[in-house]
Amino acid sequence: MIEAVERYIESQESQHLERLDAFLRFPSVSTDPALGSQTRVTGEWVRDQLAACGLEAELVETAGHPCVIADSGPADGGATLLIYGHYDVQPAGDESLWTSEPFEPTTRDGSLFARGAADDKGQVLAHMLAIEAWLKVAQRLPIRVKFLIEGEEEIGSPNLGDLVRQHRDRLACDYVVLSDTAKLDAATPAITYSTKGLVYKEIVVTGPKSDLHSGSFGGTVANPANVLAGILAGLKDDAQRVTIPGFYDDVRILDPGEVKMLEALPLDDADYLTMTGSPGFDGEAGYSTKIRRWARPTLDVNGLCSGFIGEGSSTIIPSKAMAKVSMRIVPDQDPEKISAAFDRAIEAAAPGSVRVQVSSHATAAAYVCPLDCPGIAAAVSAVEAGFRKKPVLIREGGTLPILPLFKDVLGAESIMIGFAVPDCNAHGPNEFIVLEDFRAGIRTAAHFLKQLA
Amino acid sequence: MIEAVERYIESQESQHLERLDAFLRFPSVSTDPALGSQTRVTGEWVRDQLAACGLEAELVETAGHPCVIADSGPADGGATLLIYGHYDVQPAGDESLWTSEPFEPTTRDGSLFARGAADDKGQVLAHMLAIEAWLKVAQRLPIRVKFLIEGEEEIGSPNLGDLVRQHRDRLACDYVVLSDTAKLDAATPAITYSTKGLVYKEIVVTGPKSDLHSGSFGGTVANPANVLAGILAGLKDDAQRVTIPGFYDDVRILDPGEVKMLEALPLDDADYLTMTGSPGFDGEAGYSTKIRRWARPTLDVNGLCSGFIGEGSSTIIPSKAMAKVSMRIVPDQDPEKISAAFDRAIEAAAPGSVRVQVSSHATAAAYVCPLDCPGIAAAVSAVEAGFRKKPVLIREGGTLPILPLFKDVLGAESIMIGFAVPDCNAHGPNEFIVLEDFRAGIRTAAHFLKQLA
Repeated sequence: MIEAVERYIESQESQHLERLDAFLRFPSVSTDPALGSQTRVTGEWVRDQLAACGLEAELVETAGHPCVIADSGPADGGATLLIYGHYDVQPAGDESLWTSEPFEPTTRDGSLFARGAADDKGQVLAHMLAIEAWLKVAQRLPIRVKFLIEGEEEIGSPNLGDLVRQHRDRLACDYVVLSDTAKLDAATPAITYSTKGLVYKEIVVTGPKSDLHSGSFGGTVANPANVLAGILAGLKDDAQRVTIPGFYDDVRILDPGEVKMLEALPLDDADYLTMTGSPGFDGEAGYSTKIRRWARPTLDVNGLCSGFIGEGSSTIIPSKAMAKVSMRIVPDQDPEKISAAFDRAIEAAAPGSVRVQVSSHATAAAYVCPLDCPGIAAAVSAVEAGFRKKPVLIREGGTLPILPLFKDVLGAESIMIGFAVPDCNAHGPNEFIVLEDFRAGIRTAAHFLKQLA
Repeated sequence: MIEAVERYIESQESQHLERLDAFLRFPSVSTDPALGSQTRVTGEWVRDQLAACGLEAELVETAGHPCVIADSGPADGGATLLIYGHYDVQPAGDESLWTSEPFEPTTRDGSLFARGAADDKGQVLAHMLAIEAWLKVAQRLPIRVKFLIEGEEEIGSPNLGDLVRQHRDRLACDYVVLSDTAKLDAATPAITYSTKGLVYKEIVVTGPKSDLHSGSFGGTVANPANVLAGILAGLKDDAQRVTIPGFYDDVRILDPGEVKMLEALPLDDADYLTMTGSPGFDGEAGYSTKIRRWARPTLDVNGLCSGFIGEGSSTIIPSKAMAKVSMRIVPDQDPEKISAAFDRAIEAAAPGSVRVQVSSHATAAAYVCPLDCPGIAAAVSAVEAGFRKKPVLIREGGTLPILPLFKDVLGAESIMIGFAVPDCNAHGPNEFIVLEDFRAGIRTAAHFLKQLA
């Protein structure tokens, strides 16, 4: 049967592209209140597409943009799969940097350029078209399939947690699949089995009530900028290990087999430095670049501001100094525990000659799918069939707060199959999807249903 | 004779105030190119006032605003005194914060409010009026007096060094007197005998070619903001001593008598914290607040900037991080030597995983007048006679680059006699001079000539 489905998919190429074109023309920018109605219309379009296939599909209201929930109904057997994705997109940004209009999809050199082509409309649509193909060819799906396509991913999914908890029975599943990640490189498909968590903090150090003359007052009262530099520097030791007490306590030891697998992945040092433009590597002593990147917790200063930052000089002791600091955490670090440990460490480091306030911007847990999970094996087979090449298994340093939520609330593991290339300009100008990857994505999604049956 | 001069000064009070009013009405804002012609007119007014007294006065051109040089001609004996000051003023700033117009002098509660009332027109005019009084009463001055009144002090005197070197013979003198400092407090007149020097630096740390995603790239390449925090923190040790090798090598040991004198000055801890609004004292271990403030070298971060500094969060590894750092230095630290030592220390602290650039914004030497200098004794007597109260001898943490220049080029010591109160709002809104201090200043300036005869 899968052969007939593949043939059908091939035969529908032009109408698949028409559908992708239609999806991408909606300016469903969730951050822009002026485009709120366009975002809703996009959700309605997704719901209608799924309903037209024969799924029971509904636009579910939230406190923000609505969410599409759909269900193919009970199947004869196999696993139940929840396909998660999002129909909202990032703003176009500076349109002068786009070669073609961000909401007028344009094909160049075998790729389709438009905002959302990769993140995430193109990847979501691949799954939808695979479902449609199965239903057209076989009149039924090999397994039960549900959809959860939200409209607020690009603003941090503020209402998704509540929605998943409210609809936990309706969303019940064995696996979640999402295609919002990337291949390892243009030639190598990848399944991502882990994401890091995030604890994002802001530190404000306050000293004098207003900026002071550094000549008249220097050396007598604390300078918040100097104090902040000391606090930040103290967060890591000379081996670039985070010094926050207990920080590493719950870090799960990597299985030697997994380490071997990750170390075997291609990652060229010279290419990496060229890509980042960094003069050299740096990071926690005792771990390779790959392991630091994918599997070790990190701490980064994301922003710094204090005093006089214009051209030239101004001889002041700043009244305030601010830093944004984020930590990427790994299994089994608990974000709330790390957050509290951070607060205590800052408090302990702060001298009495200043006031120090710490606030939180975000906390999210890491996620890892066990490598021996049958869903992973099914995905490997599906990608190999869809892309005609064996995928690699990789981790991702970024954060998807929804994954630990699915695990906690639905008890389901998540499988991330990326159909986009890593340099697809997801949040920048000239976002694109390689059309051959879009076709391979549809095939992969179709094969995945068979593999889970 | 001095009694007659004092009586004359008293009799001229109303016309002295008229002259002060006229001087303050000129918007001689040297930083504002649109007011360039007004600044020149102000210089011409000063020259004309001095010429009307009978001094040989000239407006000397520079590459910027002109400078007034005047000379009373040879006297029968005594020292030759050079009166230094400036006729330019700071911008008014936010005029909505002024109770009365900045360039319309207004008397309230015994003080005259206007931009330049204290810094420096009121103080310069006090010296001019003392000279005039002597000449009106005695037809001659007790000593030879010269004037050097510049129009670029508020923009850092960029052309004054060249001018002093060019006119070194014409400006030759035994002492320089300047009134551009303050009393210790409203009740206590002060003579300032030392200023700190300044070395002002900017550090730019560059890592990746553009901001990177802190999830995808964190832990692999150096974060310039973290690196900068480490470099800055390393500039001081736990005892708040500057760690730059050789930094303290040339610091002149204070004479125990001077330490005793400074320690005896009133400086109330609670008042000081209220004034600065700082939660507590901080600074180099082993020295009192007074000694740290007036006589120890200091290092302050004046500005910090890197990455994301808006509201909320952005998970980036910044491409760049910048800090402005200034050091106030004391006798006999050499600014060029300290500047080079700073550069070497930063270079040594910079890891190879980033690029670090250091640039200089300013270097200026400290100045100290020997306490046994006869000019100091003369000033003490003059202030006691003029203010009817014995002055204290203090140091100042700010920097006057002109003082070491006078010492080097003219071989003359500088005596700083302040007629303004410390909270005179010199660079802020509602700048003022207490009119009784203005009158005491004229008397002091008159007595000073007699003391130097």
